[in-house]
Amino acid sequence: MIPKMMKAAVVQEFGQPLVIKEVPVPVPGDNQVLVKVITCGVCHTDLHAANGDWPVKPQLPLIPGHEAVGYVVALGAGVKNATIGDIVGAPWLASACGCCEFCITGWETLCEEQTNGGYSVNGGFADYVVADSRYVAHFPKGINFAEMAPIICAGVTVYKGLKETEVKPGEWVAISGVGGLGHLAVQYAKAMGMHVAAIDIADDKLALAKQLGADIIFNAKSADPAEIKAQTGGMHGVLVTAVSPIAFEQGVAMLRRKGTIALCGLPKGSFDLKIFETVLNRYTIRGSIVGTRKDMQEAIAFAAEGKVKAAVHTAKLEDINKIFEDMKKGDITGRIVLQIATP
Amino acid sequence: MIPKMMKAAVVQEFGQPLVIKEVPVPVPGDNQVLVKVITCGVCHTDLHAANGDWPVKPQLPLIPGHEAVGYVVALGAGVKNATIGDIVGAPWLASACGCCEFCITGWETLCEEQTNGGYSVNGGFADYVVADSRYVAHFPKGINFAEMAPIICAGVTVYKGLKETEVKPGEWVAISGVGGLGHLAVQYAKAMGMHVAAIDIADDKLALAKQLGADIIFNAKSADPAEIKAQTGGMHGVLVTAVSPIAFEQGVAMLRRKGTIALCGLPKGSFDLKIFETVLNRYTIRGSIVGTRKDMQEAIAFAAEGKVKAAVHTAKLEDINKIFEDMKKGDITGRIVLQIATP
Amino acid sequence: MIPKMMKAAVVQEFGQPLVIKEVPVPVPGDNQVLVKVITCGVCHTDLHAANGDWPVKPQLPLIPGHEAVGYVVALGAGVKNATIGDIVGAPWLASACGCCEFCITGWETLCEEQTNGGYSVNGGFADYVVADSRYVAHFPKGINFAEMAPIICAGVTVYKGLKETEVKPGEWVAISGVGGLGHLAVQYAKAMGMHVAAIDIADDKLALAKQLGADIIFNAKSADPAEIKAQTGGMHGVLVTAVSPIAFEQGVAMLRRKGTIALCGLPKGSFDLKIFETVLNRYTIRGSIVGTRKDMQEAIAFAAEGKVKAAVHTAKLEDINKIFEDMKKGDITGRIVLQIATP
Amino acid sequence: MIPKMMKAAVVQEFGQPLVIKEVPVPVPGDNQVLVKVITCGVCHTDLHAANGDWPVKPQLPLIPGHEAVGYVVALGAGVKNATIGDIVGAPWLASACGCCEFCITGWETLCEEQTNGGYSVNGGFADYVVADSRYVAHFPKGINFAEMAPIICAGVTVYKGLKETEVKPGEWVAISGVGGLGHLAVQYAKAMGMHVAAIDIADDKLALAKQLGADIIFNAKSADPAEIKAQTGGMHGVLVTAVSPIAFEQGVAMLRRKGTIALCGLPKGSFDLKIFETVLNRYTIRGSIVGTRKDMQEAIAFAAEGKVKAAVHTAKLEDINKIFEDMKKGDITGRIVLQIATP
Repeated sequence: MIPKMMKAAVVQEFGQPLVIKEVPVPVPGDNQVLVKVITCGVCHTDLHAANGDWPVKPQLPLIPGHEAVGYVVALGAGVKNATIGDIVGAPWLASACGCCEFCITGWETLCEEQTNGGYSVNGGFADYVVADSRYVAHFPKGINFAEMAPIICAGVTVYKGLKETEVKPGEWVAISGVGGLGHLAVQYAKAMGMHVAAIDIADDKLALAKQLGADIIFNAKSADPAEIKAQTGGMHGVLVTAVSPIAFEQGVAMLRRKGTIALCGLPKGSFDLKIFETVLNRYTIRGSIVGTRKDMQEAIAFAAEGKVKAAVHTAKLEDINKIFEDMKKGDITGRIVLQIATP
Repeated sequence: MIPKMMKAAVVQEFGQPLVIKEVPVPVPGDNQVLVKVITCGVCHTDLHAANGDWPVKPQLPLIPGHEAVGYVVALGAGVKNATIGDIVGAPWLASACGCCEFCITGWETLCEEQTNGGYSVNGGFADYVVADSRYVAHFPKGINFAEMAPIICAGVTVYKGLKETEVKPGEWVAISGVGGLGHLAVQYAKAMGMHVAAIDIADDKLALAKQLGADIIFNAKSADPAEIKAQTGGMHGVLVTAVSPIAFEQGVAMLRRKGTIALCGLPKGSFDLKIFETVLNRYTIRGSIVGTRKDMQEAIAFAAEGKVKAAVHTAKLEDINKIFEDMKKGDITGRIVLQIATP
Repeated sequence: MIPKMMKAAVVQEFGQPLVIKEVPVPVPGDNQVLVKVITCGVCHTDLHAANGDWPVKPQLPLIPGHEAVGYVVALGAGVKNATIGDIVGAPWLASACGCCEFCITGWETLCEEQTNGGYSVNGGFADYVVADSRYVAHFPKGINFAEMAPIICAGVTVYKGLKETEVKPGEWVAISGVGGLGHLAVQYAKAMGMHVAAIDIADDKLALAKQLGADIIFNAKSADPAEIKAQTGGMHGVLVTAVSPIAFEQGVAMLRRKGTIALCGLPKGSFDLKIFETVLNRYTIRGSIVGTRKDMQEAIAFAAEGKVKAAVHTAKLEDINKIFEDMKKGDITGRIVLQIATP
Repeated sequence: MIPKMMKAAVVQEFGQPLVIKEVPVPVPGDNQVLVKVITCGVCHTDLHAANGDWPVKPQLPLIPGHEAVGYVVALGAGVKNATIGDIVGAPWLASACGCCEFCITGWETLCEEQTNGGYSVNGGFADYVVADSRYVAHFPKGINFAEMAPIICAGVTVYKGLKETEVKPGEWVAISGVGGLGHLAVQYAKAMGMHVAAIDIADDKLALAKQLGADIIFNAKSADPAEIKAQTGGMHGVLVTAVSPIAFEQGVAMLRRKGTIALCGLPKGSFDLKIFETVLNRYTIRGSIVGTRKDMQEAIAFAAEGKVKAAVHTAKLEDINKIFEDMKKGDITGRIVLQIATP
């Protein structure tokens, strides 16, 4: 029995604490499913949404959350590839037009008409969420719901970013920043057969990277990351997950000639790219934004096989404002996941 | 009969006029050929060499010139793929190690041990030049020596740069800057089946671009090049030949999502890359430096078929200091080629 | 005003003449449009459909035709990217699931649940046809309807096949068979900057190829096509449009080392691939089937610009059985297009 | 001190036993090194050489062997990238022209002027062998000479073959045939992050594959390998190492749509390729021949890290005729390596 009302964390005003309140359970429209949320990860983007930080702001009131995992409990009209009882995720890429040059070439992440979960449409900080059945993530039975939640945003983002570096098995990739994104990136890179250099300024994060399989760790506080070139001949690719322009410049300095640096963090501002070095060394600099449905399937498959595992702490929906406070202070290691119901 | 002495334009001191003087004809060593120079193009790099502008300076005295085309007149020991009477070019990439990871994968342009014609080894502003037979450009009989000279530097550079944009036939490329490099780029792009938007700030250069086949021309002085997006949906690729960081920023603004901008000019300084735009639009920024031997063969083949033709003005070796003066003032349209002997 | 009944050419029994009769005008369902057919090309596949030649047979009665071009005159529910008055084409790839690994990566041509126009769903040998709005081809205003009809099947098929050869501008491609497909392939290849060798056994077809821009023509009846290697160094790619296994073997023999042969014809039977030659020469053999929606857009764009033009003969719907007779005899040059209404 | 004479196994007449005899130690020419052989693997190709099985026969007398690993003990003139004491391998690709379109693009394996170790030039079934310093394989110190010998032929061949399947980490590859090549392929594929299905007709070989990390094993004697499709959705790639055309046909039947089958075995004869299936499923069939110098470096790096280990049996030079007898009977598991000297 699906109830009429549900509990949700709602942004009523930008920059103000979210309000935990009863709201109506949404009704799935054409091609949509209703998902009973079991877990929903908390991402920096949720904080930006709640603060109205970005140029294009969401409409209020808004329920944030784009790492929701749960069960399909109701189907709208025309749903073809999901059925009651399926375990699905409601991701950032909530829907896309299906017909533009990007959608028809497997790059729906670049669709200009996309909607985004927990931003332009309501997300998973609630008991239920509606999701477009054509864009949900699919999970096998038996998963750990808390550990899987971050895979559909942080996981797929770094997995795609690694693909965008074009690093091949046996080559070197540097993961710059070993936080919520970076600790997953280390694992994906190893599962993809790469050699990994992990870069951070915190020794405990570097210790985690080592434990997760990094071949080399490097503290960028105490020494210049360009030193890594001496040990390795230089990185074939660099994935910058750190939200810092300086990490970007250091990343370029680690590259081997013909190397590629992919940026999947979204720090404000600009990055100063030296033209002479870029040209003479044939560097490639590339932005990477979340991942497509295919990337999602692949990212989940690695996690479902146990090759990648998110370090998570669970919390309650009611903790959301406290979590946002900690996020602002940078006090979080791993990913926080809201445990909204028991599986 | 090869004479003992030859005329050459020699840099004796950085920043000083070149001296036209008699020097000994060089003797080809192992794997080298002696080339009787017919024409040699003049490139901005020659000016930088003569001024000692770059961090790694050439040893003096130096004979500049890396667009020399002429006849093989003598062979050193071990030469296998050139013979007396061949028409060859002595290019910027004078030699490379042959064994590093770049050399063995067809990217000898990135070899750390490469020598460069008219820079680290003597070049073609002379009656004769020695060249490594394994790295010379090969020409068919019957060519126009003056028109071919710029192909082995300016031509191959933009041809490679166009390849590096990854623009496919039928897609849009913008050529930013229609000077010595750009006017060749327009022609290569058309021969490769691309749609071309030519951007410059000089109407006469834009008129030339139109005449050479550009589908759209745009004066960046009077309007914002980003307007091109409205007409075309945005560029799939941009090739920046202009020696100006602002051209680089404008270039990024013309890109369609998932587009690539290749930079083959070498302006001093840095370029300010906006992180948010780069990530959300999945832009790729790439440096491109001259071209490999394979690129050279291809670039020459297009020119030899008449699909690409350099706009050249010929001059005498003795004019070199005057040419450098004009270059500094930006008074040159097309490419200047020294006519050193008659074919 | 859309009438209730329309004229159509209907397969009532396999192997029997089609019956021209009145049938109800179909009603567009969800996501579908009703198209008033102006022209519809006739393809060999239509003959196979009418004869029930292939293992998976269509259900009867059937209206064949998958090269229909016309105007949208009515919209079903949920149609987003088409509107009344649009000029669209109803192609072979009539619809696909939208969610499988092929659909979400821009390879809907490989979707196992696709429907096919004029085969598993009714096609364009009729006054009206319904089509899935998400899979129709889009045309600009002002087109020649007769010339455009073959583009949406024959055109896109060879265009995709050329892409699948991975031949780059400036390289050599051989087009084997200069019939309905091949005469378009020659034009696409030239527009893509390739060098073209056209192979056929009929001198008039070779003359047409020459006129359409082929650099070399070769009559495979009088000499061994492998001789082309001597002239050119071998083909970088070969596109086999001929419906003949022997053309396939000759195609392989024309390849340069590392070359690719793409097959887009569908002759019965097998092809005898020599293992030693394939391995030592690193040949690639690849099947290619029609084209995706993106390929379709690109193929149409080349034609709309006038770079590719189909050689067509128009006929009336009532002529269909005569046309099929001629097809069986191989008496057709160019493509036959049914002119069903005036534009 | 390098002796004047050495022991070698010499083919004096095709089809006759090799003769173990004293012959002069060869003298390294320009760019060559003299290698003191420690181990040399025995490959089927050596048997073909000794029998004169192939169309282009070697000149006799001939010393076979193209998996020799040893120390550089003397340098010819002009050697730049090897020095006395280096551990190197003398591989099948003994030298190439350095200047053809294949050599300058990192595909020297396709050079028409290549020489081949133990075939067109003398090989490693001897105390010493000369090798072109520009084409030798380089090893780090501390290697196991016996285990490394097969890497420079069998190892690099399957590693390259896997690359040629274009299978990405996380996707499925089938290794058809788990013998000397296949047991290495299973390990390379796992190290490259692939899912592996191993196919053979011998249960002990399949047990070895399982132990080496294969995710699925399948006995093709008792059931149709196409059944693997049901379990996995089909293979993204297939690598055929089995010397049998039937393995090739079964390989194609295992492919998922859009899959690639690479063939690196060299059975006599042809393979029957079904055109309809190839086209409709967009299959790619590709030959793959040994590997380039870059592939060699990478293949060795995986082995040097311990990720890939050849199963070897050592024997003495004098055993060579017995080994060839066993090879003919198919009585060999793993690879036989001649231990010619102690490291």
